[in-house]
Amino acid sequence: MSRKSKGIDAERELVHKFNNNGWMAVRIAGSGSMKYPSPDILAGNNIKKIAIECKTTKSNNKYLTRKEVNELRQFANIFGVEPWVAVKFTNKDNKNKDWIFLTLEDLKETDKSFVFEYEKAKLLGLSFEELIGV
Amino acid sequence: MSRKSKGIDAERELVHKFNNNGWMAVRIAGSGSMKYPSPDILAGNNIKKIAIECKTTKSNNKYLTRKEVNELRQFANIFGVEPWVAVKFTNKDNKNKDWIFLTLEDLKETDKSFVFEYEKAKLLGLSFEELIGV
Repeated sequence: MSRKSKGIDAERELVHKFNNNGWMAVRIAGSGSMKYPSPDILAGNNIKKIAIECKTTKSNNKYLTRKEVNELRQFANIFGVEPWVAVKFTNKDNKNKDWIFLTLEDLKETDKSFVFEYEKAKLLGLSFEELIGV
Repeated sequence: MSRKSKGIDAERELVHKFNNNGWMAVRIAGSGSMKYPSPDILAGNNIKKIAIECKTTKSNNKYLTRKEVNELRQFANIFGVEPWVAVKFTNKDNKNKDWIFLTLEDLKETDKSFVFEYEKAKLLGLSFEELIGV
């Protein structure tokens, strides 16, 4: 399976989770390739609305480019939603392969990019249930 | 150009209009073919958020199926946005080919579907500028 297909599968999985829990979520067409900033997923209920950048990784850390982070922030500011990064660590050593949700403040800024590590993400991030307030 | 391509072109045109006017708008992936209700476009700014079903027609009236209308209403209720239908009448006789925005209350319900006619849509509907409150 291509990297792109895996990314889409991960996004679809997350959309299902929201839709099965009383929210509505949609995948955005052409995210990452549009001339305008756009997230991977928009999800909302009557209380909360969020824009999500989705990432999966087999390693213990994952990078986001400065452009990805800036565009997510810009989109969220103008549209009027909360920006979140959803990450799934699929490393075999990690027993818990659930999604972890991070705010942009949870990311560690480096010279060229933003990074989050598994151990810190587990501490700082929210689970899906915490995010949706179940 | 296929009917599907024309539909996507129309959606893209509308997304550009929003993004060029201080809003953020995105096309939804797989709208119309997803197992969950989903609109064609989501657009928002910090004040207002809307879900849009896009239609273009060469004739003087256009139908929406009961399923389309119900799903748009359901999505909008749960996500927490306003449901709108955007229609562009491309009939040669119509000098004004701008988009007209209708609420679900503006649609006329028939036995099997919902219909809107050009003359009534012009009277009832909002222009793009009126919709975004320019």
